Amino acid sequence: MKSRLALRVRYAETDQMGVAHHGSYFIWMEAARTELLREQGLSYRELEERGYFLPVREAHLRYRRNVQYDDRVIVESWLSALGGASLVIAYSIFREGEENSIIAEGQTRHAFTDRSGRVVRVPGFFKDLFKGEASPSAAEL
Amino acid sequence: MKSRLALRVRYAETDQMGVAHHGSYFIWMEAARTELLREQGLSYRELEERGYFLPVREAHLRYRRNVQYDDRVIVESWLSALGGASLVIAYSIFREGEENSIIAEGQTRHAFTDRSGRVVRVPGFFKDLFKGEASPSAAEL
Amino acid sequence: MKSRLALRVRYAETDQMGVAHHGSYFIWMEAARTELLREQGLSYRELEERGYFLPVREAHLRYRRNVQYDDRVIVESWLSALGGASLVIAYSIFREGEENSIIAEGQTRHAFTDRSGRVVRVPGFFKDLFKGEASPSAAEL
Amino acid sequence: MKSRLALRVRYAETDQMGVAHHGSYFIWMEAARTELLREQGLSYRELEERGYFLPVREAHLRYRRNVQYDDRVIVESWLSALGGASLVIAYSIFREGEENSIIAEGQTRHAFTDRSGRVVRVPGFFKDLFKGEASPSAAEL
Repeated sequence: MKSRLALRVRYAETDQMGVAHHGSYFIWMEAARTELLREQGLSYRELEERGYFLPVREAHLRYRRNVQYDDRVIVESWLSALGGASLVIAYSIFREGEENSIIAEGQTRHAFTDRSGRVVRVPGFFKDLFKGEASPSAAEL
Repeated sequence: MKSRLALRVRYAETDQMGVAHHGSYFIWMEAARTELLREQGLSYRELEERGYFLPVREAHLRYRRNVQYDDRVIVESWLSALGGASLVIAYSIFREGEENSIIAEGQTRHAFTDRSGRVVRVPGFFKDLFKGEASPSAAEL
Repeated sequence: MKSRLALRVRYAETDQMGVAHHGSYFIWMEAARTELLREQGLSYRELEERGYFLPVREAHLRYRRNVQYDDRVIVESWLSALGGASLVIAYSIFREGEENSIIAEGQTRHAFTDRSGRVVRVPGFFKDLFKGEASPSAAEL
Repeated sequence: MKSRLALRVRYAETDQMGVAHHGSYFIWMEAARTELLREQGLSYRELEERGYFLPVREAHLRYRRNVQYDDRVIVESWLSALGGASLVIAYSIFREGEENSIIAEGQTRHAFTDRSGRVVRVPGFFKDLFKGEASPSAAEL
């Protein structure tokens, strides 16, 4: 199950090359994760309130094309692996209406931790959300 | 007593106009406040650890000139007013070696609050740091 | 004529106080200006392509309440003054459905410049967009 | 030859987990690249003025530990590969004085392009800067 977040590139997200700065993409991917979880019935805000956190342990992105200020961008995201204490989310970014022309694609790997940062096992209610979605393989990038 | 923070404009801080984005200045001013307090003998980190917070209640900035990627910039800051439960910090921003050619100048007004966001009186140890520096006038912008 | 931009507070926009960082608001206001112009029939992107720029000359914001990660926020913006070579845009920020409970309000003053940064007179096609909206008073903050 | 950039974590760079946001690291790495080139005798600003650009084509980072507001951080960077039209820079990030305790490590791969974004061969003057530093292997991540 893939989630799609639509956004417009903000002026502040550009740099003097005249395109969106490469660091902006990670912020968009994070916003996309929020929607991915919400569409599964879980807000990440609630997850934190229940004492679970998903800090990024690894991030990887390939940039294929540029996007510019005011472009409408879609960030597609999906759970690509779910391990015992971590998960991997994958992303595909493209201009609205141009999904065959990938702008960037990548993954983030997250640990499941408690408030203090200690790694914990993925809770059952979380696994249930994605039942049958991702193989329970080792969540490696 | 004025504090000076030196920094270099980062590439990510530029926008497609080819200059530092106007929002970057507020982040520099915040970094300057950190040094202003440290030079008075108090790290803001410690202040928060002691349960005091200084959220921004008002921010005002005039932009007179641009700065560009890789420019060396000085952010001068000083306490301009200290009230019963708030304070005002003023800023003057210029290129290193060009302090007669102001790039931007402004102020931020801060409340003193506890961890929950409730306004509290400025603690005595804080007043002592700036003794004789700012008039105890109403801390208005 | 007021424009409304709806957005969700991103995780990256929070800071360790657990609320949206005060600098994020200026980026939201900029995104709101983009929509304000678009709703008048002019994209700011096109304006730049035609050789006109609207750099920020002054920014002022009062923060009254906090917003948190994942909150839905409305940034209302409108032209409050249009001078011979500058303009002022005003903003009111609130949570969706809570417009009587202002989170922040402020203004930005902009010069009209050409690509090189030289101030130019507001072009006729721009004045026509906002005909009858703002008094042609000196665009002072 | 390794370059070291020292910086202090800014308040705006934290998020509500109370640590530096994972996106901040890419901005620090970019600032570190600027210093790496400068120490080789070439400012990236000049490189762009000469019509050469180094857009990021791939970014990869592993996060091992957190850093907090006001921590002093070192971003070590070095050229790890130089190809015909691209290069790879590697990074190691740690707290000042704790270089055996890596906070994050990663790489960015860059194309050499002209102003229009067209890929160009690495110019001779650039190769000369790093003579004997990196194997002229295919610059792959």
